Amino acid sequence: MDYKKRSQEVLWLPFTQMKVYDEEPMVIESGQGLKLRDTDGNEYFDANSSVWLNALGHHNNELNQAIIDQLDQIAHSSTLGMANIPAIKLADKLVQLTPTGLDRVFYSDSGATAMEIAMKIAFQYWLNTGITTKKRFITMQNGYHGDTIGAMSVGDIDIYHKIYEPLLFQNFVAPYPNVYHHESHDAKKTKQDCLEKLENILRVHHDEICGLTIEPLMQGAAGMIDMPIGFLSGVRELCSKYNILMIADEVAVGFGRTGKILACTHENVVPDILAAGKMLTGGYLPLAITMVSETIYQAFYDDYDEMKTLFHGHSYTGNQLGCAVALKNLELYEKYNILDNVTENTLFMRNELQQLYDLKIVGDIRQVGYMVGIELVKNKKERQAYDANLRVAWRATLIMRKLGLLTRPLGDTIAFLPPLISTKEEIRQMIAIIKEGIYHVMEEMNHEE
Amino acid sequence: MDYKKRSQEVLWLPFTQMKVYDEEPMVIESGQGLKLRDTDGNEYFDANSSVWLNALGHHNNELNQAIIDQLDQIAHSSTLGMANIPAIKLADKLVQLTPTGLDRVFYSDSGATAMEIAMKIAFQYWLNTGITTKKRFITMQNGYHGDTIGAMSVGDIDIYHKIYEPLLFQNFVAPYPNVYHHESHDAKKTKQDCLEKLENILRVHHDEICGLTIEPLMQGAAGMIDMPIGFLSGVRELCSKYNILMIADEVAVGFGRTGKILACTHENVVPDILAAGKMLTGGYLPLAITMVSETIYQAFYDDYDEMKTLFHGHSYTGNQLGCAVALKNLELYEKYNILDNVTENTLFMRNELQQLYDLKIVGDIRQVGYMVGIELVKNKKERQAYDANLRVAWRATLIMRKLGLLTRPLGDTIAFLPPLISTKEEIRQMIAIIKEGIYHVMEEMNHEE
Repeated sequence: MDYKKRSQEVLWLPFTQMKVYDEEPMVIESGQGLKLRDTDGNEYFDANSSVWLNALGHHNNELNQAIIDQLDQIAHSSTLGMANIPAIKLADKLVQLTPTGLDRVFYSDSGATAMEIAMKIAFQYWLNTGITTKKRFITMQNGYHGDTIGAMSVGDIDIYHKIYEPLLFQNFVAPYPNVYHHESHDAKKTKQDCLEKLENILRVHHDEICGLTIEPLMQGAAGMIDMPIGFLSGVRELCSKYNILMIADEVAVGFGRTGKILACTHENVVPDILAAGKMLTGGYLPLAITMVSETIYQAFYDDYDEMKTLFHGHSYTGNQLGCAVALKNLELYEKYNILDNVTENTLFMRNELQQLYDLKIVGDIRQVGYMVGIELVKNKKERQAYDANLRVAWRATLIMRKLGLLTRPLGDTIAFLPPLISTKEEIRQMIAIIKEGIYHVMEEMNHEE
Repeated sequence: MDYKKRSQEVLWLPFTQMKVYDEEPMVIESGQGLKLRDTDGNEYFDANSSVWLNALGHHNNELNQAIIDQLDQIAHSSTLGMANIPAIKLADKLVQLTPTGLDRVFYSDSGATAMEIAMKIAFQYWLNTGITTKKRFITMQNGYHGDTIGAMSVGDIDIYHKIYEPLLFQNFVAPYPNVYHHESHDAKKTKQDCLEKLENILRVHHDEICGLTIEPLMQGAAGMIDMPIGFLSGVRELCSKYNILMIADEVAVGFGRTGKILACTHENVVPDILAAGKMLTGGYLPLAITMVSETIYQAFYDDYDEMKTLFHGHSYTGNQLGCAVALKNLELYEKYNILDNVTENTLFMRNELQQLYDLKIVGDIRQVGYMVGIELVKNKKERQAYDANLRVAWRATLIMRKLGLLTRPLGDTIAFLPPLISTKEEIRQMIAIIKEGIYHVMEEMNHEE
């Protein structure tokens, strides 16, 4: 089979304009460690961890073996009304690894469904406790929580969400503390300004609001926008003060990306509801979780005919193969001190990234652990963006691809989220390619002017 | 670890009132063929195929090997802007197995997301082609399409959906041809009545309607309600006549459950958009598909800045392990003539099921292939239901569990959807247990009266 040709004939790829794909189709064949290999034999650094998923490298023998071992028992049985061993062992591990207050695990298959479950729990929680006014959500400007209708409803990225507006429910939207583009350009002032504006909404509307959705420490799809220190804990205080359930979407930031199991832990924040997925299985299989406090769980726990049950489930909820590889992934984090590796190399990465500022189109570099956004600008002084249709960051990543590195842009921001096992030397090599890619696109832009 | 105890401490199971679970917790340990084994060493027939998923039995060596072989290449890489070999091979197979008009495959992880994608495609299709008035959906009474907000919006099962109403978008709802509960009790009259009522809505509102959602041949979660012959093709004609995209939700009925790859094929119907999942991977891994015609695909195919892209994707879209096992599953259907087995045994199953009518609480038995609903009633003549709080079908399934058979009720209907490899002898054994379970609950009801 001519894979490239057939891919153009039968596939519709996610988040992909297929006319653009058709210009340069690409088929991944295999992987090993940080490297992906395509059907032409080219090798690439997987510099965004296959869109923020991969933790311990591709073709990891210990993860492979965990799946093989589980296959010898059973691949899947339903968790509707019954449990299975890997689902229990993983939930046990998750409850141990996360703070008290995240006490129960509800499984699903993707970050979007984990968020849908989180929202349904927040919505139903108040009804189950007899409070019937709290039916709306408050979300963050430019937030992203997935592509299903509910997840899009609490999202705020126009290019993804706007045309579906007639299908989405409406929310309150609070400003997000984007320091680089805030009028003050000052972290502390940006934080205070945004917390005040959030409180202004909550003061008036808290009786209507069941939950708040937030991406802790770093907004991902918005373009890797980190929060000022203290913002997350400020939000936590306001949620508690105004009796609103805090829903932390750690799909992108959770399980080591920031150097800790949960990003919330950096500010000693415990959300009421947690959604996570992506790196949970080390980038192997679809599995996501929604965790809640025992208090929330108890609000749904009653005799059947009290009708407090959460009627939600997916066919493969609690899939044994996914749970088995996730458990092994988390065990390997401990065996190989993966989080320490991230923490230790974060400063090295930060220093290496500084050299990118030599390029006049690099406006801002934002980093939390192994999660980096490099924002390209037309005018560094004015922080002025390029015309979106020039797709400057997209073009930079195409050049990087030819140089042996894969990543995806987010608007004018280049994402750099290498696997957690990346060493200093590999980080150095990847950043060198990223620099070269940006340099070349800068040259192209100069010629076009 | 005491698995049962720990399951009660850390898990929140889907579609489960955990207070009921706590009364009789159960942990599945392994599986082989049609049988599941729990941690107490009990064995059970998996008589609903782990909630309608399992096709070729548990611990199938050839399916296991397909996963092991794929692990040797790569477990997962992103399909955002690039493809992979198992995703291409599976899409190629799907396009071959399904009728012309289902030409492209968009992957996701669950039936709910496959339906969300189908709806977003239907909604955006008209906008991309310059028609801005068609923004609403028409759905079937008592339909079920999954538990995310969008999927619930086109669903119509009060117990699952009603409390979330403030979050759901509104649709037109057409009556579903439930012959047993239709005033006529006649298949032909029920069909004509429902088609007329559907056309009455379409005649007035077709300019507002982008798509129609339907579960072909058999509504699943509603209680296994089969359609009269000719209803599905009648709906297809009306969709064509009024320029509405027909979205077939074959999540439950697809991939052999009815004896054919697609249920639509029984009536030579080709939907505009198909959503499927569940049995696609043989019950092994979460994987779902949304298939569309080339015409629909082309409406999204343009230069990037025309903004016609479908901005949708999930982390594990096109997962290699899921695609590899699904491909093997479909290959094994052919190797072992699985669909012929279903077709051949359907009549045998129908005859065996007739004996259940001996029990005075068995009101109706509905069957399409290996998909059966047995509706229990208080009064057979009046077709009168038991008080819902008695949970008569639930109690019957608890008895069956003690007799070595697992299934789940849907309201007062007992679902019987055995794996596709089930032989006549196994079908006979399972129906005998189901009969005994119903008999015992009938005795209980008699004593309580």
